[in-house]
Amino acid sequence: MKRTTIARIYADPQAFADHDVTVAGWTRSVRDMKNFGFVTLNDGSCFKDLQVVMNVGEVGNYAEVAACGTGSALLVSGVVALTPDRPQPFELKATSITVLGESAPDYPMQKKRATREFLRTHQHLRSRTNLFRAVFRVRSVAAFAIHRFFQERGFVYVTTPIITASDAEGAGEMFRVTTLDVDNPPRTESGEVDWSQDFFGKATNLTVSGQLQAENFAMSFGDVYTFGPTFRAENSNTRRHAAEFWMIEPEMAFCDLEGDMEVAEAMLKYVIREVVDSCPDEMEMFNKFVDKGLRERLEHVASSDFARVTYTEAVSILEEAQAAGHAFEYPVSWGIDLQTEHERYLTEEHFRRPTFVTDYPREIKAFYMRANDDGRTVAAVDCLVPGIGEIIGGSQREERLELLQARIEELGMDPEQYRYYLDLRRYGTCEHAGFGLGFERLVMYLTGIDNIRDVLPHPRTVGNADF
Amino acid sequence: MKRTTIARIYADPQAFADHDVTVAGWTRSVRDMKNFGFVTLNDGSCFKDLQVVMNVGEVGNYAEVAACGTGSALLVSGVVALTPDRPQPFELKATSITVLGESAPDYPMQKKRATREFLRTHQHLRSRTNLFRAVFRVRSVAAFAIHRFFQERGFVYVTTPIITASDAEGAGEMFRVTTLDVDNPPRTESGEVDWSQDFFGKATNLTVSGQLQAENFAMSFGDVYTFGPTFRAENSNTRRHAAEFWMIEPEMAFCDLEGDMEVAEAMLKYVIREVVDSCPDEMEMFNKFVDKGLRERLEHVASSDFARVTYTEAVSILEEAQAAGHAFEYPVSWGIDLQTEHERYLTEEHFRRPTFVTDYPREIKAFYMRANDDGRTVAAVDCLVPGIGEIIGGSQREERLELLQARIEELGMDPEQYRYYLDLRRYGTCEHAGFGLGFERLVMYLTGIDNIRDVLPHPRTVGNADF
Repeated sequence: MKRTTIARIYADPQAFADHDVTVAGWTRSVRDMKNFGFVTLNDGSCFKDLQVVMNVGEVGNYAEVAACGTGSALLVSGVVALTPDRPQPFELKATSITVLGESAPDYPMQKKRATREFLRTHQHLRSRTNLFRAVFRVRSVAAFAIHRFFQERGFVYVTTPIITASDAEGAGEMFRVTTLDVDNPPRTESGEVDWSQDFFGKATNLTVSGQLQAENFAMSFGDVYTFGPTFRAENSNTRRHAAEFWMIEPEMAFCDLEGDMEVAEAMLKYVIREVVDSCPDEMEMFNKFVDKGLRERLEHVASSDFARVTYTEAVSILEEAQAAGHAFEYPVSWGIDLQTEHERYLTEEHFRRPTFVTDYPREIKAFYMRANDDGRTVAAVDCLVPGIGEIIGGSQREERLELLQARIEELGMDPEQYRYYLDLRRYGTCEHAGFGLGFERLVMYLTGIDNIRDVLPHPRTVGNADF
Repeated sequence: MKRTTIARIYADPQAFADHDVTVAGWTRSVRDMKNFGFVTLNDGSCFKDLQVVMNVGEVGNYAEVAACGTGSALLVSGVVALTPDRPQPFELKATSITVLGESAPDYPMQKKRATREFLRTHQHLRSRTNLFRAVFRVRSVAAFAIHRFFQERGFVYVTTPIITASDAEGAGEMFRVTTLDVDNPPRTESGEVDWSQDFFGKATNLTVSGQLQAENFAMSFGDVYTFGPTFRAENSNTRRHAAEFWMIEPEMAFCDLEGDMEVAEAMLKYVIREVVDSCPDEMEMFNKFVDKGLRERLEHVASSDFARVTYTEAVSILEEAQAAGHAFEYPVSWGIDLQTEHERYLTEEHFRRPTFVTDYPREIKAFYMRANDDGRTVAAVDCLVPGIGEIIGGSQREERLELLQARIEELGMDPEQYRYYLDLRRYGTCEHAGFGLGFERLVMYLTGIDNIRDVLPHPRTVGNADF
């Protein structure tokens, strides 16, 4: 069987006009008008459906096909007929139809408005709906756009380890990975769990970030990026947090915070451009049914400069808003960690576009961020976007051995655990910077979908590891 | 600082001739000839080094630079001078050099032939050697080529979950993922570990394959692929096994075993072509110093048809070899699982090219593989390549509900655990197929490197989770 995808016909209907083709797909509706009927078929190759026209005289098993429910798999041969005066540009006049697999009458994806909550309980079928077919295609297009962006610029893709014996930066709660018998683990003489008998000879966890390892490779390749899963065992049940999510972490040698922001801004614009251009049908659907201002907002972002403001200036802006009567749940003052409400005020109310906030107080940021000369801030940057809040977090890294060592000791961390990391500062150190982009937050931003559970193929959250 | 990468200059030396440029990189050697000197600089943007010429009169801090050890980071400004009569096509006549970071005298990557075993203990620095810089660039190029291959053909990239509550197919030993206190886990009244109190409300593991979930998406998108990490907690210390490795798993609706093999063969050829064409310097190095026949073998594979043989025919070939005096450690007879020695005989001695072996005995293959009409084999396929053995394992999936249900029951598996999987056969089932490609084995095949530890940025094997 040599099938033609529906996407190929839509790409150039003229070329297929009056040609015989064979398509295969799933029925979205079957309408029986006695002597003739219509089948709406989708094969997943594009957002659009194919209208199939069949009639009793031509299609021998007409009755069998007419009895097929939504979601049935069909193989259809026929002739492509242009239909300039109909809503769809062409239809397929069937000459033969094979029913490959009927759909049982209890098919849960019947044509009706199912709630997203219901669809979450049918993750194995939900990508058959318009909404989720659109979400997961945009996800795929965005992922590839990210690879393309970095590869075109000469970045080397590095896969950093998922299982790790370090805790990266104390960035969050971690999942333990083990082959020990949890019911009856081996114990040392003093009665503690004997992790030396675990698979790796020590206690291991799921990674929370590939950054420290990415730095190893930036110090030889110059520009590298990771794109892989990361994990947080945080017991938080919000619309923005999943226990398992994908991150992109570029790391660049000979690069300062300014260069870091340039790459981040160019990357976001590139991905937006790519998704808007190559998923017009999907974007139209999101714009119509999910988030009315989506397309306009994305176009605006892709063509305007991101705002840039220091943390200290941002706090002044928020304090002024506070003084002018804007009520924040968490009061603002220099030194606090910005809350989502503050981030959203800055990017949605004040700047009304993506906003880089730089130079945060050192006390609220990670040990590896480069100390600024003022002695109280570090060269950190967060990128805030309307509707989401923080989508990117980055920094210039502390490349000065003495300062980094001092900071590690000051925070009571174990320098031995960071020996490799410190080695990078011993042997040919140089200024370097990088950032982390939460991929699911990006997909939420691109689609207007407001729950992270609906942009992950099979989300993992507290209490949920089904499918 | 606006730096030019060394790759850009090599891409078009004429365009840079007599131009001022600033480059940044790490020294591979510094030679001081008293009044002038040479610095060999690499910035990781390409395999080749840049020759920098400096002289005392021009470079103010000549003595400082001349004293720099291997691995120091420098910023060099100068003029590109074409050198048609020297081994390298151009050099950089330095006008100023800034020492960004000296390399301490105990730098472990001094210019000498370090063993790969030694370099494995310095994974954070080993990508600064020619060998590993080449390996990890080829890895990156191959990864991107795989994404491009599938995206160009309209496949949708799906990230399947890493944490899973199912055991996929009993494909191998799994790592437990937990947030329970292993020292003192909660227990049920009957004294067993109470997994319902674990993070996901049940016991979870690291995935061994994304195939079953990929099928969910193939049944709506038609063609999908995964590319992500998978795990085996097998206590085997071989050159071909790692506990954490990356897999590519395409899954195609309306596709049989023949179509499956076509895609696998086209994919391998595409990736070989891409790596050979875009990494000429790296491939030359592998061909010279790692595996002398590498380039010829890859060129041959990229341009010839893969052999195809059924398991039953393959067993006959092996039995004939046996009868003719070829000594196998494991004797051959119909029904055995082919061992690496058998696979290598087939692909290296008999066919002398990549070989698809199809239609294996059902008893040695997974439950989801489609039953052949002969009642004793299934529509499975392994792709064997010289030097590696099995690199791809795939199959047409059993799409017939009754047969799949019967097989699950026959094997004593829990049908409830496969409810979602069976649903795909209830609602619009169709023939479909897919395969899994071990990414590290592919990189080994492409580079001639014979140990999986040397193609993973930071390998995880029994007893090893450093870095």
